Amino acid sequence: MYIGAIDVGGTKTMAGVVDERSRLLAKAQFPTLTADPNAHFARCAQLLRQVADQCGVPFGQLAGVGVSLPGTVDASHQVLTMAPGSGWREIPAAQLLREQLEGKPLWCDNDVNNCARAELRFARGPADFLWITVSTGIGGAVVAGGRVVLGCGSLAGELGHYKVETQDPLPCPCGSAGCLEAYASGAAIGRQFARLAQEDPETGRLAEEQGVPLDAAGCAALAQLGHPAALALFQQAGRYLGRTLAPVVSVLNPAAIYFGGGVARSFGLFAPAAQAAIRERAAESCAGLVELRPTGLGYEASLLGAAALFLEQAAL
Amino acid sequence: MYIGAIDVGGTKTMAGVVDERSRLLAKAQFPTLTADPNAHFARCAQLLRQVADQCGVPFGQLAGVGVSLPGTVDASHQVLTMAPGSGWREIPAAQLLREQLEGKPLWCDNDVNNCARAELRFARGPADFLWITVSTGIGGAVVAGGRVVLGCGSLAGELGHYKVETQDPLPCPCGSAGCLEAYASGAAIGRQFARLAQEDPETGRLAEEQGVPLDAAGCAALAQLGHPAALALFQQAGRYLGRTLAPVVSVLNPAAIYFGGGVARSFGLFAPAAQAAIRERAAESCAGLVELRPTGLGYEASLLGAAALFLEQAAL
Repeated sequence: MYIGAIDVGGTKTMAGVVDERSRLLAKAQFPTLTADPNAHFARCAQLLRQVADQCGVPFGQLAGVGVSLPGTVDASHQVLTMAPGSGWREIPAAQLLREQLEGKPLWCDNDVNNCARAELRFARGPADFLWITVSTGIGGAVVAGGRVVLGCGSLAGELGHYKVETQDPLPCPCGSAGCLEAYASGAAIGRQFARLAQEDPETGRLAEEQGVPLDAAGCAALAQLGHPAALALFQQAGRYLGRTLAPVVSVLNPAAIYFGGGVARSFGLFAPAAQAAIRERAAESCAGLVELRPTGLGYEASLLGAAALFLEQAAL
Repeated sequence: MYIGAIDVGGTKTMAGVVDERSRLLAKAQFPTLTADPNAHFARCAQLLRQVADQCGVPFGQLAGVGVSLPGTVDASHQVLTMAPGSGWREIPAAQLLREQLEGKPLWCDNDVNNCARAELRFARGPADFLWITVSTGIGGAVVAGGRVVLGCGSLAGELGHYKVETQDPLPCPCGSAGCLEAYASGAAIGRQFARLAQEDPETGRLAEEQGVPLDAAGCAALAQLGHPAALALFQQAGRYLGRTLAPVVSVLNPAAIYFGGGVARSFGLFAPAAQAAIRERAAESCAGLVELRPTGLGYEASLLGAAALFLEQAAL
């Protein structure tokens, strides 16, 4: 069986053909046209046809299409209600795509929910786990009893703007302060690292010597070299992630927390501090059962997850 | 249809006959024989037969039996693994009861999970909500997408011993410190009120004048009269409940949080502080959608919930 998969990101969009065993037969990508969502979704459909051609799967042979979207998706109406990165609001994504795709069966959901579906279906994740994407921002998804939890307003997983710090909180680009994203997102680590490089001559000199960029990846590079101040920023991120997750672990009793997104490549730098904060605060019985893991799905988690969404919804 | 319902509590046990519209036709209760669980479960079965007789429903006409148990229940093996109040461990509750009940279809689960089932099925609760029992201790249950979440070790809802305070934390009877139960349980409010009555002459005098006991109910009575120090203890409890629930609200996006148990009768004393703490800390979008409510199910929530469990498991 062949499934069409589309992953619309804030800056780039991918289309691919996936089989039911999660093999990605072909893919292509192009920049997301944030200025014109109608044109963008038409382009997505066109790209999916091209990719299918490219791997020798006639378009008619696709069983259906799954779509990952970069924001809040109203699951019952299949509408992208809000995408913070692109500024899109109330985009009838499924309808726009179906018009271009000959009415093929098609489902959309939030990209992080779909990452969790890929972990569940293709990587044999347990029936109860959390998925946390740590990238520019922070997003989450919950799988309970083998199903993705959506919540009453399709907002489940909204942990990026939970106020994890109330005493002398760092400002967050959202306008508030003390949000988890203000401490633990890639952007936050990058901001703090850039400030550190400016204010601390030793860090600045080392960054220049090593030729690392003043962002989260640069911070990770210095932390890997053992630079204590760079490592401390990842440990701080881990501590705040753990503080946010401890009550959630106590209430949901998950078997695992998977980390994906760009910052998850630095899993070893932040996970011990997150684990320690969970052990310190969560109910002991639950803390002992949860394992923190980097996802094994890599860069295409959300694209594969789009295919997993189709398989779930078509009950295949 | 008639369903047998048994609610085994830490100190007392109830049996009743419930119809599919949640009417409780008859019930009886007796003290829980913690010293001899085998004898206790035999006695439960006997009592259920008596209650059925009493309301003129022949035992053979009961479609099946649902059971609420006061601790952690391994759902797949139907074993009460741990009951903190009675000290029971690894009690094969379903097996003990079935032997006495002619092999009738029978299911057991944790009492708080069953309260949530009663709210869902009989009080038309929304598909996504939390249930919090605030009584001697604190227990929780999660309903997501219309189903009770069990967690990987059947421990979901274990929020009583989440460490909500790390700075100068109050000791908890569990041996740890800073647990939610150390601030917001009925026992904790009672302990703090008794200390207050001892240390603050005005509170002590007022308690004596009003003839209120030095426990949570006495504290509630003085708080209702407007005594600021008594009210402050409920506000503190609400604040810590809200702090614990804020990240959970952000991650699960529930439509409601129902409060049951003895302390829930004082809902108006602690709920505003809990609501404020959730608004202050949860992701704004999720905080705006959640409503705090006292359950309307009253004293028999867990007994009715046992019947709801049977209906759920028998898919009726």
